[in-house]
Amino acid sequence: MSRRIVVIGGLAAGPAAAAKARRVDPDAEVILLESGEHVSYGICEIPYVIGGIAGSFPDLMPFTPERLEAAKGVVVKTLHRVEKIHASRRIIEVRDFKRGRVLEMPYDRLVIATGSVPNRLGIAGEDARNVFFVKTLGDAHSLESFLKERTTGSAVVIGGGYIGMEMSEALVARGFSCTIIHQHDLPLRGLETATREAVAHELTRQGVRWMGPASVQGFDVTAENAVSRVRTNRGSVDADVVIVCIGVRPSSALAEEAGVAVGRHGGIRTDRRQQTNLGSIYAAGDCCEVRNLLTNRGMYLPLATLAARQGRVAGENAAGGSAVFKGAIRSIAVRVFGLEVARVGLNSTEAAEAGFDPVVSHIESDSRIPFFPGNERIHVVTIADRRSGRILGANVFGGGGAVLRANVLALAIQQKMTAKDLSETDLIYSPPFSPLWDPLLIAANNLRNTIEDQ
Amino acid sequence: MSRRIVVIGGLAAGPAAAAKARRVDPDAEVILLESGEHVSYGICEIPYVIGGIAGSFPDLMPFTPERLEAAKGVVVKTLHRVEKIHASRRIIEVRDFKRGRVLEMPYDRLVIATGSVPNRLGIAGEDARNVFFVKTLGDAHSLESFLKERTTGSAVVIGGGYIGMEMSEALVARGFSCTIIHQHDLPLRGLETATREAVAHELTRQGVRWMGPASVQGFDVTAENAVSRVRTNRGSVDADVVIVCIGVRPSSALAEEAGVAVGRHGGIRTDRRQQTNLGSIYAAGDCCEVRNLLTNRGMYLPLATLAARQGRVAGENAAGGSAVFKGAIRSIAVRVFGLEVARVGLNSTEAAEAGFDPVVSHIESDSRIPFFPGNERIHVVTIADRRSGRILGANVFGGGGAVLRANVLALAIQQKMTAKDLSETDLIYSPPFSPLWDPLLIAANNLRNTIEDQ
Repeated sequence: MSRRIVVIGGLAAGPAAAAKARRVDPDAEVILLESGEHVSYGICEIPYVIGGIAGSFPDLMPFTPERLEAAKGVVVKTLHRVEKIHASRRIIEVRDFKRGRVLEMPYDRLVIATGSVPNRLGIAGEDARNVFFVKTLGDAHSLESFLKERTTGSAVVIGGGYIGMEMSEALVARGFSCTIIHQHDLPLRGLETATREAVAHELTRQGVRWMGPASVQGFDVTAENAVSRVRTNRGSVDADVVIVCIGVRPSSALAEEAGVAVGRHGGIRTDRRQQTNLGSIYAAGDCCEVRNLLTNRGMYLPLATLAARQGRVAGENAAGGSAVFKGAIRSIAVRVFGLEVARVGLNSTEAAEAGFDPVVSHIESDSRIPFFPGNERIHVVTIADRRSGRILGANVFGGGGAVLRANVLALAIQQKMTAKDLSETDLIYSPPFSPLWDPLLIAANNLRNTIEDQ
Repeated sequence: MSRRIVVIGGLAAGPAAAAKARRVDPDAEVILLESGEHVSYGICEIPYVIGGIAGSFPDLMPFTPERLEAAKGVVVKTLHRVEKIHASRRIIEVRDFKRGRVLEMPYDRLVIATGSVPNRLGIAGEDARNVFFVKTLGDAHSLESFLKERTTGSAVVIGGGYIGMEMSEALVARGFSCTIIHQHDLPLRGLETATREAVAHELTRQGVRWMGPASVQGFDVTAENAVSRVRTNRGSVDADVVIVCIGVRPSSALAEEAGVAVGRHGGIRTDRRQQTNLGSIYAAGDCCEVRNLLTNRGMYLPLATLAARQGRVAGENAAGGSAVFKGAIRSIAVRVFGLEVARVGLNSTEAAEAGFDPVVSHIESDSRIPFFPGNERIHVVTIADRRSGRILGANVFGGGGAVLRANVLALAIQQKMTAKDLSETDLIYSPPFSPLWDPLLIAANNLRNTIEDQ
């Protein structure tokens, strides 16, 4: 008898798991359950579509449920919400919104890919008609509809993280004046100070008003249930539209109620095979914690790439395979208007907390031969352990391929290379692409000297 | 008594060696001898200056002899040609062109950085007034003067290597119609066939006429000592200007006459400290062979980056230090009009010759999210050893950061990573910079599958 693999969650990790399970075991019955209407869509691209910078709404959905079924051989049930997992009996309770009933569904293997939920302010007015989150395709559609009516005015972005950066660019692109309210003095917590200052400078240069450190204390709500002002401890801001993007947290309650273990960040804990403490249950994506390859501890890192990787591994193993997802170092990038920003590995604070003795180097360089058209300034901040010389992390920002160059550092970190190792690496030189000494080599030499001088 | 370090050659490796020697031993007397008028200039940038694509002639010379002396504390003597090395007596014979005399100069340590000389066709007419090499600043000045008079017409580039690509772009940019004559059927020998075909296609697309395989058999020379036609075994081509760029060879005769050992490619053989078989003589740059880190054999690889690295190491060691230059993998790139082309590591033929069992994978991918502006096609050809899975080489071509991405593969190759290792690497995803699966990860997965399927 063929096994039945049920996957809960149709966004990123879920479809990856379902498709992979089916490929590994073509005899398996693979069922994908999604509580919403849509499956397999891109969240990361939403700010660019909203801003009219790239693509349009249909581009966000590579697969309809029907196409996903046809292409991947998976049974897809949208508007099906799993409400309870009876792990000991291997049965789930599923609410079918279309037919308005709850059914019991047995499974052999379960893959939980329930994703994340946005953090909320918990302030009255947060559900007003002009307050939006940027989490689901539904959120994006709501915001787009609103912006078709209200085409200009004052936008307030609450949260100065990655999505805050992207949404402020989107709103400026649509002609709004934009204010970012953030709880810290600089945007993008987790990056090095020099990087964060460069980002703040770019925001100001682009006409975005920065309010930070500031905390939202309330909304003024009109009779039409619209927020008109955002009140903070630093004063009030007029608002025609409000975007709340203060992070997400793992959607792990369903799993936890069923006895699945969660970690200290609230995400589901899995082993390297994406198996939970309950042997027939796997988990993948934003509902999980991820092992940090540098600290060997769990971290919460809800990224689409990791969800896809974990999904494939969970799906393969649920189908009887033996795939492994080792973990991640935190490779992340964002475009802040004209500024490329990338971070890989640990920051200096995390490095110290993990027991390393961090040394920080910061260099600024040309991205090409100085007189070559398209030459831009590029900054490389590197962090190494003083004792071993090992590179632990880096920020790369500026223009000129800052983000693509950061991938070289991502690899160096994962390979446990030292500053000396990297400084001796044979990299490409060609005038249209780099100066004679690539910024990465200048950074490695500087980091090496910084370590040796101390 | 302070030691005297004499450096022969003022282009790339020489100034690097001299400056480093002086930094390591501030008491040393460091003398740099250059047979030409200029020192420390960029050759790689010449095609872009000629083409009016980037910079101008003054940009090519970061240092005058005077500025080099002042900045680096080195005695610089231009128009001084070393004619003989008496290694046993540690004396060199130097011709001083300014004063028209030959002097003997004793040394404690000698660094030979005599560079390379261009290969010649050995055909009558090669010295005609409209035939140019692209090797020295003098060559570039001569060509520029000629092109100021003769502003349009037919250009013939003999040689379809890296410089041939760049010079054809330069001549087209200046309004010439351009023909490339090459001895092979495709340009850029050493790259994989798919890459070379893409380059040939780009040349054709840009209106460059490709003649290959073809060999030059003679020049028709006018009474004014100008080549009017280039005759080949495939027919003749009208020529108003001819560029000969058929490679270079090490300028190692001076060293060899003194008893310095050379390798099978004719370059000076050194150890990892850039020391020759004669203990007080070091060598660096285009006159040397370079250890290939993958085959552990000497290769000839005249690149500016390697010259600078070797120069630093030779200078440090000549001054009593203990620096090491391990070798190179052949990291090289060229822009062919709108096409980025990079090559790192071994090609499939070299891999087989070195005793590996090469497997080749070729993928084509988006460089960004498909609907993102600036998305371009990018190709990644990877070569691995079937038995070990180890990545040995790669070609990356197309648009969208092909060259910067190749540096990740350069690092992977130097780190002896397998296709599986690379496929499990945590790289950045962000819509303005990459698709969800970076082309490098798609390539690694495809390579891995190719290995496992066979």
